[in-house]
Amino acid sequence: MIKLGHGADVASMMLKYGKKEDYILDFSSNINPYIPENIDKYILEGLNLSTKYPDVEYLNLRKNIGNYLDLDYEYIIPGNGASEIIYLLMKVLDGQLGIVNPTFSEYERAAKSNNIKIIDLYFDKNFKLDLDNIRNNLDKFKALFICNPNNPSGNVESLIEILEILKKKDKFLIVDETFMEFVYESEKYTLVNLIKEYDNLFIIKAITKFFGLPGIRLGYGITSNKNIISKMWEHKEPWTVNSFAENICSYIFKDKKYIEKTKNYFKEEINFMIKDLNEIKNIEVFESSTNFILLKLNKYNSSYIKEKLFVEKNILIRDASNFKGLDTNYIRVAVKKREENEALINALKEILGV
Amino acid sequence: MIKLGHGADVASMMLKYGKKEDYILDFSSNINPYIPENIDKYILEGLNLSTKYPDVEYLNLRKNIGNYLDLDYEYIIPGNGASEIIYLLMKVLDGQLGIVNPTFSEYERAAKSNNIKIIDLYFDKNFKLDLDNIRNNLDKFKALFICNPNNPSGNVESLIEILEILKKKDKFLIVDETFMEFVYESEKYTLVNLIKEYDNLFIIKAITKFFGLPGIRLGYGITSNKNIISKMWEHKEPWTVNSFAENICSYIFKDKKYIEKTKNYFKEEINFMIKDLNEIKNIEVFESSTNFILLKLNKYNSSYIKEKLFVEKNILIRDASNFKGLDTNYIRVAVKKREENEALINALKEILGV
Repeated sequence: MIKLGHGADVASMMLKYGKKEDYILDFSSNINPYIPENIDKYILEGLNLSTKYPDVEYLNLRKNIGNYLDLDYEYIIPGNGASEIIYLLMKVLDGQLGIVNPTFSEYERAAKSNNIKIIDLYFDKNFKLDLDNIRNNLDKFKALFICNPNNPSGNVESLIEILEILKKKDKFLIVDETFMEFVYESEKYTLVNLIKEYDNLFIIKAITKFFGLPGIRLGYGITSNKNIISKMWEHKEPWTVNSFAENICSYIFKDKKYIEKTKNYFKEEINFMIKDLNEIKNIEVFESSTNFILLKLNKYNSSYIKEKLFVEKNILIRDASNFKGLDTNYIRVAVKKREENEALINALKEILGV
Repeated sequence: MIKLGHGADVASMMLKYGKKEDYILDFSSNINPYIPENIDKYILEGLNLSTKYPDVEYLNLRKNIGNYLDLDYEYIIPGNGASEIIYLLMKVLDGQLGIVNPTFSEYERAAKSNNIKIIDLYFDKNFKLDLDNIRNNLDKFKALFICNPNNPSGNVESLIEILEILKKKDKFLIVDETFMEFVYESEKYTLVNLIKEYDNLFIIKAITKFFGLPGIRLGYGITSNKNIISKMWEHKEPWTVNSFAENICSYIFKDKKYIEKTKNYFKEEINFMIKDLNEIKNIEVFESSTNFILLKLNKYNSSYIKEKLFVEKNILIRDASNFKGLDTNYIRVAVKKREENEALINALKEILGV
């Protein structure tokens, strides 16, 4: 009934194989397994707020996000997850859209839902930005969509050069930085500090993944382009951010200890996982700077491994074959808690050999 | 920046007059002031859920709603408040849309946002459905939007006759029943039990108002029209309902005691308010079957009274002048807790005379 290209199929997999969520290790969603301290307190506080309609302009919320990013709150538009921001942006964008693949499928779905024509571009074989490929196709699009760090490759890089190129050609750059906070030295890669300077830039972020609360639904868009952001406000449905999401933002962004601890954790844990995964036969491991890892299978195909892990090991991974530019050789796994990661690695060792 | 026609202006009014929310009595939003028992427990339980993505098909949630309404879950599509359902429906509707005014302004805003042409129709002067007016305009629209009980009039009536007329002409009826649960004998007026029989019917509901939690954001659409509902699922953004909303629906619909108590409360309280309001000079009170009352001012205009109540009495009411078909003589007030209602009545008595 619902045609979605991504891996959000925990429920359907459980249904298919008669399994219960309690004992499934879900490596298919890229979520921080550790949530901020005292979050239960902030959530209960949000209950009081929820007996009233949220402020339709979300002034407080935008100020909290603005303080976190050191940006004026007027540059910020909040949404029900990054999804709402993506769809709303597609609603006000005109001209054709370049998308650099492989990447999150909702960009294309949102564009198509708003009758925007897509130009598919591709990263190079190491999942780095292919500037020549983009330059050669510059005439074909008005805006370019890049996910950085990229989902599913885990690669992060500086996009300043492409931002500059697009600026000169009067074209727009949209960067999904949803996974940027997981990157250890993210200040080297984020474009947030260039928002004021470049009005051809739109950045999408979310609290979903880094703060470990995808079910609370909060994303936001950032741009100094007044034309784009005011059009988005015009089309925005009212009250899309709930009171619980609104309320925790008074606290979580200020929790520097948690933020630093999380960054440190993922830096170490991804090194541990990549080292151990590299010992396994029949797979190729791609370097990652964020909280998930792309793997290439050299012997089995993705659906076989996915089913085997689920049925025999109660582990759910992301079959990455439906990302444009990938094929049935690719799977993606999240970085979770140490003992869970070990369970995954052991299961893969058993199935693929060491 | 945001052009919204409704009264959600608590934040801007407070900002304008330098007041704080703590002591403002908000009669502009029509929300049940009593929330279900144990809701804090259900909310905290939802925190666990929120560390995962919600089921993108919301199977459990739809089954809970289905059980509540005694309907198959496949007829139900959940959304981020009634708003998402309204916008999504406008996205898949074709042909022109008749709207019966005065009514909630988001129907028109959603239609315009999706380039649907509007035909404005009107209730009669007692805010009853004007069947002749609708019959005379049947050729001009493909679907008709009615809010029942109507916001802002508070009038409720049976829509079976118009449903039948539209069915014969192969036209669609959309009914916003957001306020239906407040009606004492709502079974006489709701069309929910005709959903199976009439595939030209779409009903919009929400937990927002009756269960007193607008900030939790949950509405839903109901139809047996497979074409409409499958198109809506196709266009639906993923995960728009948060885990907290999802989780409380396992409980609140089963709380028959709370539901009955609420219905009884509003039946008594609206009688009390209407009786007392009728003692006040210079206003005309319209009968209401739900949790708000429309008033016509015979001496002052709506913006004067709104400002006076806010500045002098810390009471916020809804200036109803921007509803199509109304004018600067109309205001709307919610039914709240007894002592709050008394404060409003006393303030109005003081300003308008007895």
